[in-house]
Amino acid sequence: MTEKKRIVSGMRPTGALHLGNLHGALQNWINMQPDYDCFFFIADWHALTSDYENPGNIKKYTRNMMIDWLAAGLDPEKSVLFVQSRIREHAELFLLLSMITPVPWLERNPTYKEQIDALQNKDLSTFGFLGYPVLQAADIIIYKAEGVPVGIDQAPHIELTREIARRFNHLYGRVFPEPDTILTEISKILGTDRRKMSKSYSNAIFLSDSPEQIRKKVSQMITDPQRIKRTDPGDPSVCNVFTFHQLYSPTDLVAQVDPDCRSAKIGCVECKKKMAEHLVAYLSPIRDKIEYYKNHTDQVEQVMAEGSDKARQVAAKTLAEVRDAVRI
Amino acid sequence: MTEKKRIVSGMRPTGALHLGNLHGALQNWINMQPDYDCFFFIADWHALTSDYENPGNIKKYTRNMMIDWLAAGLDPEKSVLFVQSRIREHAELFLLLSMITPVPWLERNPTYKEQIDALQNKDLSTFGFLGYPVLQAADIIIYKAEGVPVGIDQAPHIELTREIARRFNHLYGRVFPEPDTILTEISKILGTDRRKMSKSYSNAIFLSDSPEQIRKKVSQMITDPQRIKRTDPGDPSVCNVFTFHQLYSPTDLVAQVDPDCRSAKIGCVECKKKMAEHLVAYLSPIRDKIEYYKNHTDQVEQVMAEGSDKARQVAAKTLAEVRDAVRI
Repeated sequence: MTEKKRIVSGMRPTGALHLGNLHGALQNWINMQPDYDCFFFIADWHALTSDYENPGNIKKYTRNMMIDWLAAGLDPEKSVLFVQSRIREHAELFLLLSMITPVPWLERNPTYKEQIDALQNKDLSTFGFLGYPVLQAADIIIYKAEGVPVGIDQAPHIELTREIARRFNHLYGRVFPEPDTILTEISKILGTDRRKMSKSYSNAIFLSDSPEQIRKKVSQMITDPQRIKRTDPGDPSVCNVFTFHQLYSPTDLVAQVDPDCRSAKIGCVECKKKMAEHLVAYLSPIRDKIEYYKNHTDQVEQVMAEGSDKARQVAAKTLAEVRDAVRI
Repeated sequence: MTEKKRIVSGMRPTGALHLGNLHGALQNWINMQPDYDCFFFIADWHALTSDYENPGNIKKYTRNMMIDWLAAGLDPEKSVLFVQSRIREHAELFLLLSMITPVPWLERNPTYKEQIDALQNKDLSTFGFLGYPVLQAADIIIYKAEGVPVGIDQAPHIELTREIARRFNHLYGRVFPEPDTILTEISKILGTDRRKMSKSYSNAIFLSDSPEQIRKKVSQMITDPQRIKRTDPGDPSVCNVFTFHQLYSPTDLVAQVDPDCRSAKIGCVECKKKMAEHLVAYLSPIRDKIEYYKNHTDQVEQVMAEGSDKARQVAAKTLAEVRDAVRI
């Protein structure tokens, strides 16, 4: 028995993780490990909701994501790390919750129409995409989660999860707690082009990038757009490279770069070079672990198998309660 | 390996079976047993699509339905008899098919809006009710059915099943045959009040009714509505009691009742009494078997367990192919 609050969160296996993912979600999860009873899963079924027409090799993406997780610091001794599609109970609960979820709740979901508009190159008028929040609710409440660490953009989905849990409890008797939303810190770092870091914008630095790749990408980073000439003074507070410095460089270097930029004592090329070395150093142990796990995929498979077994035990117990409550 | 064509069909556990169910679907299934590779299931999850607010004891209804099936002549040695919710693979395939099924296909489904209109006392604006045909498609194609025996009212759903199977094959490679619709004979018998026989109209004669109940219900049957007085001649061709005679009475009695009714030689009371005795005799062995199984529920449980194990093996094999095709 644990006294810790149980949290559940997941990530879609869309490809290699980048610094935006690390600081946006993963680092938050890693930091929560000592204080919470953590269930973290790779949402491979969810990958199909928007990419069903060309899903790629989800199985491979899933393994690579677990490698990134382990390398970055998620620890199977501290957290239950598992793969959604290996817990068939999620699908069964999705089916049962679908029976009690009004379609208007899903149509009103603010991210639903936003995403359909945003991803106009994909046909998202599918039953599964409409039901995305129902599957998400099943993912969460099947572990009787008390909290869900998510970014602000996911908050409406968690509210929907709470409503679905409440409706189930109302119809069949209390089985599920209503999970709290735990808003996670949003990453301040941007992509190399100053847009949001994203694989699809080709502006991302990946955890698995080599020192050469990192140096090259950093050298192409857009800095303070007002600083045109080497002799122009810069403004670190609007410079993405400075944000990187704050994350990866030692304090004394950060303290020195700030005035040196403002006085044009240091140029962007030199400033980037300094930062790049600290970023390379920061990622070096992570990259080494990625290399290690890529050469020891049996260990990764074992982590996924053991984590999924642990998760399945909890999920199966909940499902038994659910079936009793529904009397099916 | 069997050379027989595989068929799959299911029935919702809504309560005791009546003569309309027997002649409408069940007798068709019983007759198909020697010629087809039959999978028949109790659709207990489907019972939730329209009755989620007050599902009753689905578990009990399911057992009672299996008892009715066995008593009427479905044979676990000839057919795979199973319970939908015990094959979790249906839920997983439902989830996967939901990803590729366009919402407009479901909204256009003619029975969808009909049912919402017909059942206005129930709130059917749920995600699960909208997705009813997706679950039905999963139920069917998971066994790679080549045919589905259904009534004409279900034909649009089977067409949708074919479309979903086709879309899956198109996106991920051929896994599923497109099942044919095998239209089953529609029962000609009506309820005691000449409306369609239905539990909800309180006009049904159940397989499990006692001789006394049968005699009483038959005595209340509406006959030829034009035949008001005993001395009026009747028209057997519009008389529901005559339809019953044709099903349950010996040929010579049927041949005699027809002219005797037309000439008013026989009155409705006497005619019903004669028919009632033959109906009692017809149902007597079925009722005895129902009694037997109600006292031997362990045998019923064993039939459901063994049938579900057989079904699960086939379903699991298909799911493995599906996961390979989707590369998840």
